[in-house]
Amino acid sequence: MATHTITFQPSNRAVTAPTGSLVVEALREAGLDIAQPCGGQGRCGRCAVIVGSGNIRRRSTIRLSSADVAAGYALACQAVVEGDAAILVPEQEKIERRLITDKTARKVAPPFGYDPARDQTVRAWPLSLDPPTLADAVDDYSRLERALARHGLRDLDVPLPLIRELGARLREADWQVTAIVETDDWSQPNGPPRLIDLVKPSPHPSPPGRGGGGEGLYGVAIDIGTTTVSVHLVNLVTGEALDSAAEYNGQIARGEDVISRIIYAGKNSGLGELGTLVRGTINEVVGRLAQRNHVERDQIYKATVAGNTTMIHLFLNLPPASIRLTPYIPTVTHPRPVLASEVGLEIHPLAGVDCLPGVASYVGADITAGVLASGLAEAEGLTLFIDVGTNGEMVLGTKDWLVTCACSAGPAFEGAGVVCGMRATRGAIEEVWINGKTFEPTYRVIGETRPRGICGSGLISLVAELFITGVADKGGKFKMDLDTPRLREGDHGPEYVVAWAGGTDIGRDIVLTKVDVDNLMRAKAAIYAGFSVLAQSVGVELKEVERLLIGGAFGKYINVEKAVQIGLLPDMPWDKFHFLGNTAVMGAYMALLSRDARAQIKAIAEKMTYIELSADNTFYDAFTSALFLPHTDMSKFPTVVALGKNGRA
Amino acid sequence: MATHTITFQPSNRAVTAPTGSLVVEALREAGLDIAQPCGGQGRCGRCAVIVGSGNIRRRSTIRLSSADVAAGYALACQAVVEGDAAILVPEQEKIERRLITDKTARKVAPPFGYDPARDQTVRAWPLSLDPPTLADAVDDYSRLERALARHGLRDLDVPLPLIRELGARLREADWQVTAIVETDDWSQPNGPPRLIDLVKPSPHPSPPGRGGGGEGLYGVAIDIGTTTVSVHLVNLVTGEALDSAAEYNGQIARGEDVISRIIYAGKNSGLGELGTLVRGTINEVVGRLAQRNHVERDQIYKATVAGNTTMIHLFLNLPPASIRLTPYIPTVTHPRPVLASEVGLEIHPLAGVDCLPGVASYVGADITAGVLASGLAEAEGLTLFIDVGTNGEMVLGTKDWLVTCACSAGPAFEGAGVVCGMRATRGAIEEVWINGKTFEPTYRVIGETRPRGICGSGLISLVAELFITGVADKGGKFKMDLDTPRLREGDHGPEYVVAWAGGTDIGRDIVLTKVDVDNLMRAKAAIYAGFSVLAQSVGVELKEVERLLIGGAFGKYINVEKAVQIGLLPDMPWDKFHFLGNTAVMGAYMALLSRDARAQIKAIAEKMTYIELSADNTFYDAFTSALFLPHTDMSKFPTVVALGKNGRA
Repeated sequence: MATHTITFQPSNRAVTAPTGSLVVEALREAGLDIAQPCGGQGRCGRCAVIVGSGNIRRRSTIRLSSADVAAGYALACQAVVEGDAAILVPEQEKIERRLITDKTARKVAPPFGYDPARDQTVRAWPLSLDPPTLADAVDDYSRLERALARHGLRDLDVPLPLIRELGARLREADWQVTAIVETDDWSQPNGPPRLIDLVKPSPHPSPPGRGGGGEGLYGVAIDIGTTTVSVHLVNLVTGEALDSAAEYNGQIARGEDVISRIIYAGKNSGLGELGTLVRGTINEVVGRLAQRNHVERDQIYKATVAGNTTMIHLFLNLPPASIRLTPYIPTVTHPRPVLASEVGLEIHPLAGVDCLPGVASYVGADITAGVLASGLAEAEGLTLFIDVGTNGEMVLGTKDWLVTCACSAGPAFEGAGVVCGMRATRGAIEEVWINGKTFEPTYRVIGETRPRGICGSGLISLVAELFITGVADKGGKFKMDLDTPRLREGDHGPEYVVAWAGGTDIGRDIVLTKVDVDNLMRAKAAIYAGFSVLAQSVGVELKEVERLLIGGAFGKYINVEKAVQIGLLPDMPWDKFHFLGNTAVMGAYMALLSRDARAQIKAIAEKMTYIELSADNTFYDAFTSALFLPHTDMSKFPTVVALGKNGRA
Repeated sequence: MATHTITFQPSNRAVTAPTGSLVVEALREAGLDIAQPCGGQGRCGRCAVIVGSGNIRRRSTIRLSSADVAAGYALACQAVVEGDAAILVPEQEKIERRLITDKTARKVAPPFGYDPARDQTVRAWPLSLDPPTLADAVDDYSRLERALARHGLRDLDVPLPLIRELGARLREADWQVTAIVETDDWSQPNGPPRLIDLVKPSPHPSPPGRGGGGEGLYGVAIDIGTTTVSVHLVNLVTGEALDSAAEYNGQIARGEDVISRIIYAGKNSGLGELGTLVRGTINEVVGRLAQRNHVERDQIYKATVAGNTTMIHLFLNLPPASIRLTPYIPTVTHPRPVLASEVGLEIHPLAGVDCLPGVASYVGADITAGVLASGLAEAEGLTLFIDVGTNGEMVLGTKDWLVTCACSAGPAFEGAGVVCGMRATRGAIEEVWINGKTFEPTYRVIGETRPRGICGSGLISLVAELFITGVADKGGKFKMDLDTPRLREGDHGPEYVVAWAGGTDIGRDIVLTKVDVDNLMRAKAAIYAGFSVLAQSVGVELKEVERLLIGGAFGKYINVEKAVQIGLLPDMPWDKFHFLGNTAVMGAYMALLSRDARAQIKAIAEKMTYIELSADNTFYDAFTSALFLPHTDMSKFPTVVALGKNGRA
């Protein structure tokens, strides 16, 4: 096959690329990172590069204007190498980091009656082996088994890597070693105990079968979000969460939502790359937690992992392709535990890593863990649990039954698919107020700097204000005849100017277009339609819901009043709303500590009835009815009606 | 650290080596292979090189004469780099290969009443999965479980690498796949069945749960000998051994006997190197068998491995150091099954590899497998089983009891430690007759060429003839006053010339020295003393033995009459001797086919009482008494006595 030389500027790196390969592949070959938020589908336009000279065929130019094309722009993910070329790579939008603040050293007590005597599954056993003699010359392995049997530990599963070090460990320690043993459902329920390590005895040992003194027994509870990875570092003896930290999922540059990631995973080395990226993020966060709490990575003997089904697939390097295609089948919803070394998790290499059970392709272990942590599975009265992150999943039920569905809301509420949208980091407008007479906005910006865009809570707030003040009508259409310079015809049709260029940090007007409003309305309608379908499926009314539990980072920053005003959340008394924060990582934390909790999550996963909305006839009607501000049926939103016609007119 | 340039001739390769490193390390760095039969102890002298110029310190010069040292010779394993140097590497003695003849296509029927319906542990199950629909959208894994459950297969253990391919395999096969499943004691007795693979359905399928048609289910039974690796390729459905092959263990160049190997394994990268070498040999033999029988390596789903304890350690990369040091403790005598991919065995990567149980450091799985194959464990009458290879192990017993010991006979009977000794390959004198009047020898040479040395059977035959014809006395001392040019004073003292230089293929006289005779007498005395100690330990006489079973390659070529004449084997009627060939590989073959056989080997290993000769007071006396031709107590050797004083005088 013919190869060509592709030279990238300004880095001046050159690589050879075969005919027919993509420019993104050449970029990767050159070690240049370029964001592909849509996963390389040519939909988002963020990977645009400028072809200075040479033979590059543009396969698709969606997102590029004819002026862009004339100026040499091409989408790297859609540009095919057909000859030598020189390509200019514009400076990339950096993913802002670290506005995710870690709750340093904020300890969390175990969320239930944790009793080490009953619950602790990883324990330290100081052993005193009989040194071998000619009269007692059994092999090291049998000698170790003999010492463990004295504590009632029999038929241990000992991994080969540990057997390889057995002789040296026992002799170096002069036959006084501490065995780290995991009991309970490793690889199979009621399976044999498993030896994880033999360590030097602590100068401050705990009683046999505990290990909280010098031994140090730790675990990590991990939630892999599409956007954010959260980790709790847990003391396995006291049950205390010592510390927690979070970081953006390193996969973001390869797709903002799960669909984009799945598409990216289907490309050549995409699956491996996404796996490496998310493990990189997890390992970085775990490393940070270990360092600042003076814990060795090798003292972390256990991990539980929550996350949506796609995230779990990518973490385990399972191809997620079929999750995206009807009838939406994952490879596995409840993977067996694996070893840390099998999945590249940088804790003790022989630590067990337990990915929690999910329900279906779009209701994953983050939701089952969330149901556990939220207490929904023990609720007496009708309860609705929602977790709106990059996806929107919801569960309706009581302690006796659970129904669930997932809405492909898309990442609009995380700022994607909106011209001036951005994530909730420094420079994002997070709340907006519009003057009902002048239609002039005021706003609050994260980090108190000049604005760079609008994040999810800002968008909800903005759309609600536009509606309440009558700038937009029930159908989301701008009233262009209002006397304000803020409303105008832009390149993409009608738009409202939130901030003039001079007041921003980006040198351009920050606007919300009619197309943006339509996107946001579709997203909120999908979620509300989900509520409706769940209620209808079991023959109840939404107003019968006694408690509405909101999990996820989104819930933490949302303004309920505004969310009700646009019809995203049902209109009910505010005291019924409960914001629980990251319920997924909390559920993983509970499962890390307790076999009961793990059994409960499994029972929850088995008990949940999943409703596939794309196969549900009532969904489309409910969705269409919700495609208004706040809804076709205003009787469902009495507090919004009470604000008067379009609220503050 | 200072580094120096070492240039090797005639290859003209140069490498840099730090001060204090060994010349063998520089040789390895240069990619030059040099034999170290003693494992780098400086004892054998085979790694001698010539220091042309430069700064090399000789740490030990055992095996080098002062003339050698003056001529520039140094032992590469004992020569320390202290500056730049130029070194000439003499042409190495090649390890002769391939005189081990494979019994091409000689099929062997299963050695017991093999009944696939009862015994077959790896089976093929053609499955027809329900294609997923929106109404039946369970994950691939659960769908597979459902299909397997219809055949009564539940709670399968499915390794992560297979889960990673599950989605693609099922879809490519359009939901019609054949599952390869192993049942029975994988990783734990009565554990769950294990999925090894999902393959395309055969166009010629077998009935469910069999798999002898197009699927092809094969296994390999492996015996790792210190000198020779032997493999049977077995059809797991019919139980037939389709073919077998053998090859010299690639570790030979790093030590001729287990002690040398253990020492070598203790050097820097020695352990990994020895593991790589033996796996290389096994993989080569398995590949040869697969190719000539039109079997894919991936169709080999199971392996059993016999071998002495050191060989099993090196195969599994377990450090063997403590095997050599009192009180002689191995890491493990009965390793759990591992996966082929864990140990680099190139069969199906998820095939189970079951190393059979041994008894102690010097009575390994080759002996327990041999006891099984020999039938000793079911013998009604007193039976003695011996396996003389590089080591000499023996077992005395009946179906009710077994005692065992190992003699460090050394590799004399494999031709090592004897000036003109060599392995039983082309050019080796394998049998000698001496004229009782002229003391002139005649001999037979393997391959019918001119001789190059003397192999084990040749040495036994030669020593017996020297004794019977009166050339040597009871003490092994040459009668130098006999009128023959064959007896003379050589460089190493008195010697007998077997072949004059002109008649050889090496241009030197082939001789047997007094020192050689002493070595051979010590080796045979150790073995005979072993018999004595075993008998004494249970209070019986050797003459009560009803059957003497001889396993191992050595037994195949030995001349019993001669072996009795030198006192290596006890003097008993010939019809009590039974030569069984390689009983270790035969036992591995039985264990491969049958769970009963595996349970029996385990029971044998547990039942055997091991006597450590170095800790046994009676051994030294028995050894000293046996340090004569044939023995101090001639009454134990009536047929030798019947030959007349010194036999043919």
